[in-house]
Amino acid sequence: MKIRIFVTLKNGVLDPQGKAIHHALESLDFKGVNDVRAGKLIELDVDDGTSDSDIEKMCEKLLANTVIENFEIERPTDQAAREA
Amino acid sequence: MKIRIFVTLKNGVLDPQGKAIHHALESLDFKGVNDVRAGKLIELDVDDGTSDSDIEKMCEKLLANTVIENFEIERPTDQAAREA
Repeated sequence: MKIRIFVTLKNGVLDPQGKAIHHALESLDFKGVNDVRAGKLIELDVDDGTSDSDIEKMCEKLLANTVIENFEIERPTDQAAREA
Repeated sequence: MKIRIFVTLKNGVLDPQGKAIHHALESLDFKGVNDVRAGKLIELDVDDGTSDSDIEKMCEKLLANTVIENFEIERPTDQAAREA
């Protein structure tokens, strides 16, 4: 089962990487970009029996720094809904 | 309009970051993880009129290295479908 985890910086946390991307887009002459935030995407291939709470624990212990980052877990059913 | 861009390594491209996360999960005693791939998530806040082709150009020119990476664009309608 493929699971996607989105790790994003919390609001208010400075994001120099996002700022750099924003500047680069502007210097490449792309218009209409108001803000850029950079985050991480982690794709896990886990056994089908893996519970939500196990995955949440992985995020809290290792994948995200919950002091400054939020995480979101996307399961295969969500992916199907997105692609429909 | 908030747009999310997922940048992932193509199949076959070595992913040392993903491997390191995999090892770390195992040493933290999480079972049932078969594979980990690390990617990037870029959130753009763009003007409502921004076309798909503009966003694709941003990905091809700056956000993704299309030699080794794939990108996926998620628009707000996709996000609504995912959350429904």
